Amino acid sequence: MITKIDHLGIAVKNLDESIAYYESALGLHCHGREEVASQKVKTAFFEAGEVHLELLEPTSDESPIAKFLEKNGEGIHHIAFAVEDIEDQLKKASEAGVRLIHEVPFEGAADKLVAFLHPKSTHGVLTEFCMPKQ
Amino acid sequence: MITKIDHLGIAVKNLDESIAYYESALGLHCHGREEVASQKVKTAFFEAGEVHLELLEPTSDESPIAKFLEKNGEGIHHIAFAVEDIEDQLKKASEAGVRLIHEVPFEGAADKLVAFLHPKSTHGVLTEFCMPKQ
Repeated sequence: MITKIDHLGIAVKNLDESIAYYESALGLHCHGREEVASQKVKTAFFEAGEVHLELLEPTSDESPIAKFLEKNGEGIHHIAFAVEDIEDQLKKASEAGVRLIHEVPFEGAADKLVAFLHPKSTHGVLTEFCMPKQ
Repeated sequence: MITKIDHLGIAVKNLDESIAYYESALGLHCHGREEVASQKVKTAFFEAGEVHLELLEPTSDESPIAKFLEKNGEGIHHIAFAVEDIEDQLKKASEAGVRLIHEVPFEGAADKLVAFLHPKSTHGVLTEFCMPKQ
């Protein structure tokens, strides 16, 4: 079961400029920065109620975020739903005809198990499921 | 102050097909449908924790959602933040250099006052502020 939106991933060209926008124009507070070498991105985190906003700047042209920016420009990259049972959630999505990017969840940032659905079968929204590692 | 994400607006080509996806593949429940004549869209609502997902299908080629679909295809159209004081929030955004689509909030759906920031000055994310009408 989906319990909430865990985070929104937002692709940006320049992390410092985007942090300045979220802080000065929206009044949100950046509560952390991190580099995720495996995804070739650096990130900054904000909170809006129970949802995290995760800004993503590519650190390499090979980063999936670099490719997204090239095609779409800056904007919302993915939505991550917190789920109670990620295996079960993937099974149900697959049975409903959804194409999975990851058949088996893998370990993402912050000790979470994560898996993505393919946007070709999610009406254009790159969708992630995530849950805390047991 | 931003208190939470009120809703995400998601542009879709066909409301019925998208509702079927959100219900069968994600296990979310559609808790309402509505036609908003002023925006030339029909909508369907889902809840994920404290955030509403609002699917938007254009009812006319003149709808802003029809133009979005033509340019971008299906996907997340806007993010709406619930704010405590919409006039104050717009003033702060404007002072921070953000271009406002609406200088003065107007009455949106569900008895809310709403206003949009221009995505050219929000790093690609069409951003709405909203609050309950007093």
